[in-house]
Amino acid sequence: MHSDANGLRYQSIAWQGEIDGELILLDQIQLPAALAYLHCQHVEEVFESIVNLQVRGAPAIGIAAAYGACLSLRHRWHDCSLQEAIGLVEHAIERLATSRPTAVNLFWALDRMRAVIREIAPTATTADFARRLLSEARAIHEEDRQMCRLIGQAGATLFKDGMGILTHCNTGGLATAELGTALSAIVTAHQQGKRLHVFVDETRPLLQGARLTTWELMRFGLPCTLICDSMAAHVMQQGKVQAVIVGADRITSRGDTANKIGTYGLAVLAKHHRIPFYVAAPSSTFDLSLNSGDDIPIEQRSRDEIISAFGKQTAPSEVQVYNPAFDVTPAELIHAIITERGILQPVSETVIRKLIGNT
Amino acid sequence: MHSDANGLRYQSIAWQGEIDGELILLDQIQLPAALAYLHCQHVEEVFESIVNLQVRGAPAIGIAAAYGACLSLRHRWHDCSLQEAIGLVEHAIERLATSRPTAVNLFWALDRMRAVIREIAPTATTADFARRLLSEARAIHEEDRQMCRLIGQAGATLFKDGMGILTHCNTGGLATAELGTALSAIVTAHQQGKRLHVFVDETRPLLQGARLTTWELMRFGLPCTLICDSMAAHVMQQGKVQAVIVGADRITSRGDTANKIGTYGLAVLAKHHRIPFYVAAPSSTFDLSLNSGDDIPIEQRSRDEIISAFGKQTAPSEVQVYNPAFDVTPAELIHAIITERGILQPVSETVIRKLIGNT
Repeated sequence: MHSDANGLRYQSIAWQGEIDGELILLDQIQLPAALAYLHCQHVEEVFESIVNLQVRGAPAIGIAAAYGACLSLRHRWHDCSLQEAIGLVEHAIERLATSRPTAVNLFWALDRMRAVIREIAPTATTADFARRLLSEARAIHEEDRQMCRLIGQAGATLFKDGMGILTHCNTGGLATAELGTALSAIVTAHQQGKRLHVFVDETRPLLQGARLTTWELMRFGLPCTLICDSMAAHVMQQGKVQAVIVGADRITSRGDTANKIGTYGLAVLAKHHRIPFYVAAPSSTFDLSLNSGDDIPIEQRSRDEIISAFGKQTAPSEVQVYNPAFDVTPAELIHAIITERGILQPVSETVIRKLIGNT
Repeated sequence: MHSDANGLRYQSIAWQGEIDGELILLDQIQLPAALAYLHCQHVEEVFESIVNLQVRGAPAIGIAAAYGACLSLRHRWHDCSLQEAIGLVEHAIERLATSRPTAVNLFWALDRMRAVIREIAPTATTADFARRLLSEARAIHEEDRQMCRLIGQAGATLFKDGMGILTHCNTGGLATAELGTALSAIVTAHQQGKRLHVFVDETRPLLQGARLTTWELMRFGLPCTLICDSMAAHVMQQGKVQAVIVGADRITSRGDTANKIGTYGLAVLAKHHRIPFYVAAPSSTFDLSLNSGDDIPIEQRSRDEIISAFGKQTAPSEVQVYNPAFDVTPAELIHAIITERGILQPVSETVIRKLIGNT
């Protein structure tokens, strides 16, 4: 568990032990009522944790999936051949890739694990292979920590003392290895001594803003106010918001951005109120194989999240429900995208290919 | 209980008996899980029902409050003087007027009850007075039924076959004496044979859309889809919505409209997507003493509605919360206001004073 600036401890993801170790995930479903951890020893447990949003946030999903691939060899590497081991890992990667269709960081992280398979020498032992996989997952994890810090530093420059900032969903340490993406920018500016006030959209249906973002901000001593998603326009109308910043699950080559449902509406509202709208995401969120946001697959989730998510029936049980997990904000509505490689502004294919294309 | 076109029975408000009768309210908090009725015999019970939103919807609040004033004489009119009876009724009116600060129909209905006091002959018996009060409350109730039908007929002309219509909160028979305001327009068009599809915002925090509007629409066999408030922009972006229609709690002389929180954001989103945005409300919703929406007092409600409204803690218990019940949509964003006196278009002070000013 890492210690943050205020000495409060929590970490969304940790690997404990070596190649027979286990993946420890902070169970985000139980927050804020309880701070509980899941101990995953099987690929399927990681798969379920992602599907159930016990681990969530595009970067965190990628890291968890990378470690998840390692679990396929846990206590099995010593009694199988390299070819059999490769088969197990490939099977795990395929399974994990089906957990959530929109977050591209998931595929990006699994592609890096696939590269380990391609690069392993035919003469390597299964122990070497298992070690190499774990080392790659740890590298992804550590790079994400670095990414959080760099996004925080870049993003913090956008915020001035006294600003009100509105955010949606959760983009903090819970969604990543450490400080987060959009929330890292806010927290970094706060730690630089800027007085900020954060308006947190509760983020229906699963209330990641209410449950997770307020919890994280309060641990950093950052003043914040929880609102319902439908109050964002009213708060903007009252002049209380000078910037909106959100995360991303996938960004196309022209800058169209898939993110938690509700993001697109905020971007339209921000434009109407002449408030800058920022996206913060690691470069692994870009999918340069897609140009238009229309090409991003949008995950549809269960009707139960809307009609009985709080353990109580809140709509007629036979009602028809539409529950997309994400929406797409066109590049035109985004002032800048903050990445670990710097700030992309204006948001255009030229700027994106220049900064992101040369991986 | 009235029978609707489909033979399904429910009524939001009914007075049973004569001057010693009781007020029966459909307990809207219990929907959709249970269809239960409250039997109010005391003013304070009506006051509490309004505060707790067991009866809600601007027109319904006005009707309930008018009957509530009658309850102050229940089983008391025969043993007090006319002056004493007037005192009891005045006290009840003052109390009921403090139940909800934004809905102007409440004050309008109570003003009509006050007029009965002013007009009662000094020689009248307390029984005459009690009968006169009940008769006025019944007139308000009956006029509201008429109003619902007229708004329905006028509003239905705005909808064409095949349209998708988005609505917010509940503006149906539960919110009024009978068919509703905005929902009356939709239901009337449906009954005229137009094929419509209604997108229903769930309407956080208290989910009047999820709990009540879907329930009413399904009883009319009207195809509808429940969405979270944050999905409205996405549904508009996909071209599924050709009109937005909502109710109102107070409308100023220039047309600025206070309505359920979330309405203003929908109006901005509708403008961005070039979708007409309509308000439907009886003329009693207009407050011509106010010009600007800035002058409308906005009710602030309990933090608990946001952090634990579903019987489960959904945010850190110490979190700061902002929970305005209403927001204000400026006249410029409203295409037309549908009233029982006709359609006001364009929405301007001249048009409003012409149609509404000559009461």
